[in-house]
Amino acid sequence: MSKIRIAIVGYGNLGRGVESAIAQNADMELVAMFTRRDPSTVKLQKSPAPVCAYDDLPQWQGKIDVMILCGGSATDLVEQSPYVAQWFNIIDSYDNHSQIPEYFAKIDEVAQKNATVALISVGWDPGLLSVQRMYNTCILPQGQTYTFWGKGVSQGHSDAVRRVQSVLDARQYTIPIDSALEQVRQGENPQLSPGQRHRRECFVVAEAGADLEKISQEIKSMPGYFVEYETTVHFISAQELAEEHGDLPHGGRVIHSALTGFDLEHKQRVEFAIALDSNPEFTASVIVAHARAVQRLSAQGQKGAFTIFDIAPGLLSPESPEELRRKYL
Amino acid sequence: MSKIRIAIVGYGNLGRGVESAIAQNADMELVAMFTRRDPSTVKLQKSPAPVCAYDDLPQWQGKIDVMILCGGSATDLVEQSPYVAQWFNIIDSYDNHSQIPEYFAKIDEVAQKNATVALISVGWDPGLLSVQRMYNTCILPQGQTYTFWGKGVSQGHSDAVRRVQSVLDARQYTIPIDSALEQVRQGENPQLSPGQRHRRECFVVAEAGADLEKISQEIKSMPGYFVEYETTVHFISAQELAEEHGDLPHGGRVIHSALTGFDLEHKQRVEFAIALDSNPEFTASVIVAHARAVQRLSAQGQKGAFTIFDIAPGLLSPESPEELRRKYL
Repeated sequence: MSKIRIAIVGYGNLGRGVESAIAQNADMELVAMFTRRDPSTVKLQKSPAPVCAYDDLPQWQGKIDVMILCGGSATDLVEQSPYVAQWFNIIDSYDNHSQIPEYFAKIDEVAQKNATVALISVGWDPGLLSVQRMYNTCILPQGQTYTFWGKGVSQGHSDAVRRVQSVLDARQYTIPIDSALEQVRQGENPQLSPGQRHRRECFVVAEAGADLEKISQEIKSMPGYFVEYETTVHFISAQELAEEHGDLPHGGRVIHSALTGFDLEHKQRVEFAIALDSNPEFTASVIVAHARAVQRLSAQGQKGAFTIFDIAPGLLSPESPEELRRKYL
Repeated sequence: MSKIRIAIVGYGNLGRGVESAIAQNADMELVAMFTRRDPSTVKLQKSPAPVCAYDDLPQWQGKIDVMILCGGSATDLVEQSPYVAQWFNIIDSYDNHSQIPEYFAKIDEVAQKNATVALISVGWDPGLLSVQRMYNTCILPQGQTYTFWGKGVSQGHSDAVRRVQSVLDARQYTIPIDSALEQVRQGENPQLSPGQRHRRECFVVAEAGADLEKISQEIKSMPGYFVEYETTVHFISAQELAEEHGDLPHGGRVIHSALTGFDLEHKQRVEFAIALDSNPEFTASVIVAHARAVQRLSAQGQKGAFTIFDIAPGLLSPESPEELRRKYL
C-alpha cells in the first residue's frame, strides 16, 4: 500500500513536532515543507523532504494527500487555511474558540466548492478535550463539566508579559488550583470562574535597574490576562530563564460530575487528563493521527469542513476495523 | 420533532438503568419493554410504557426506532441480538471480549440482510475505555497503554465465589494496586500481568459451622479467577453484606504513557478514568446516548453491524453540529 503523502506548511515548534510525529507513523511520508521564508534558509531536522516556497504550493497538486498547516491562529491560519484548501485536503489547529463558527463557515465554503476535505481545530483544546466535554454532556446530561488547564506554559500570557515595559523576556505558567479540583471531584458542582480554577505564575527577566514593583503591578492588573487570577511574579536572570524554563510543558483535564438513577441518587464521575512534557509535539501527534482520517474521508469522496466531532475514532488508525475490534474493543 | 422511540429487551439492573437514562434525554421516549417472563409479573419503575411478551416483538415493526438489549452476554445476547436485528435496529453491551469478532460477524450478516443497524458492545469496557485505548495507540504510537479496573464489584467473580461449597452469598471487589498505577504514571512502562495490576477482596457469607479456612483456600486457589491475584477473604453476616455491599460501584482507568520527539526525549501521558456509584446506570447512560447514533445511522440508510469505533462523537448528541462547534469545541 502506498504511503499517505503529507506536507507541512510553516516550520515553527508545531511544524517540527509534525515532522517528528510523521516519523512515528510507518504509513505516512513527509513529501514537502512549505515556508514563506527563503527556503534556502530553512533546514528540516531529519527528513530529506524538500523545503519549498509557499508561493509554489499550487504546483504540488496531485502530489500531496494532506497539507498540515502549522501556523498560528491569529494571523497565519485565517489566511492560509482557506487559501490552501482550494487545492488540497488540509488539517489545522485553529484555536481561537470564539471565532470557530465563522472560521468553519469560511473554510467550508472553499472546501465544498473545490471538493477538498478540511479538518479544522484539531489538537487537545480545541480537540481531545472538546470531545470529552461533548461525550460527557451526551452520556450524563444531569451533570456538570469542568475544564482545567496546566500546569503548563501559556504562550499568549507569556507574550502579554513580554509586552510590559522594561520586560526583556518572560514565561507564564497556568496552574490548576488543587482545592478547586478536589471540590469538582467530590461532585460538589461548584460555580467556579476561570480565576477560581487556575492561578498564574510568571518568571520575568527585567532590564537592569527597572522598577520591579511597577512591573509586577502592571502584570497583575492586566485586564483579560491576569487581573481575575491569583498571580505570582518572580524576577530571574536570562540565564535562569533559559536553563529552567526552556521547555513547553502543558496539561489539561476535563472532569464531569453527574447524577444518575430515578432519584438522581448515584454519583458518576468521568475524568480525562493529559500531562505533557512537550505541548507542540503532543498537538502535532494528535494532528498527524487525524491526517489519516482526512485522507480517508477524501478517498470516500467527502468534501467540506469537518471538526473532530465528525471523525469516527476508527478513522484515525492504520489498523483495519477487524484488527481494531480484536485488539482494542 | 418527533422523539426517538426506544424499547428495552430484558429488565434487570441494566434495563432499569436504561429506563432511568431515557428519562434524562428529552428527545427520547420509552415505548415498550419486552420480557421473557410473564409480562403481568413485571412492572416498570416509573415509565407508563407497556410491558410486552418477548414473543410479540415482531408485531412492533415500524413502531420502534431502536431496541436496547439488556440481557447478559453469556446466554441472552448471543441468542437475542441476532434474532431481534432481523426486524429492528439494535444496540447491546456484549462484553465477552475474546468472542467479539465472531459475534460481530454473525450480527453483521443478519443486519446487512435485513437492512438494520446493530451497534454492539457499547458500555465502558468494552466501550469508552476501548475508544481511549485505540485513540492512545494512534496518537502516540511510541507508548504503552494500561487498563486498570476498579475499585468495583465484579459480578463474574462474585458468582464464582458463590459456587464454592458452603458459601451462601458473596461480593467480590476488584481493586487496582496503587504502586502499579504509580509506576505506570511515572512512565516506567513496566511489564505487569493483570495480577500485578489488581488485587481482589471477597466478602463472603458462609453456612453456619462451615470450615472457613477451607472456603478461603478454595477461593484463593480458583484458576482463572483468583489464583493469579493477591486475594483477601472476609467472612461477614448476611445482614452486613446487604447493608454494606448492596450497591454496584465500579471504575476503570486507561493510562497511556509515551515518548515523542526526534530522540524520544519527551514524556507524554494521557489518562482516562471513571468512578461510578452505579455500574449498570452508567453503562445504561452510555448505551442510551449511542442509541441516538443508531437511529441516525439508520436514517442515513446505513446497515450492518457497527462498534463504538465507527461512531463519530457528534452522532451522540441531540444538539446540532453548529451548536456542538460553538459550545464544546
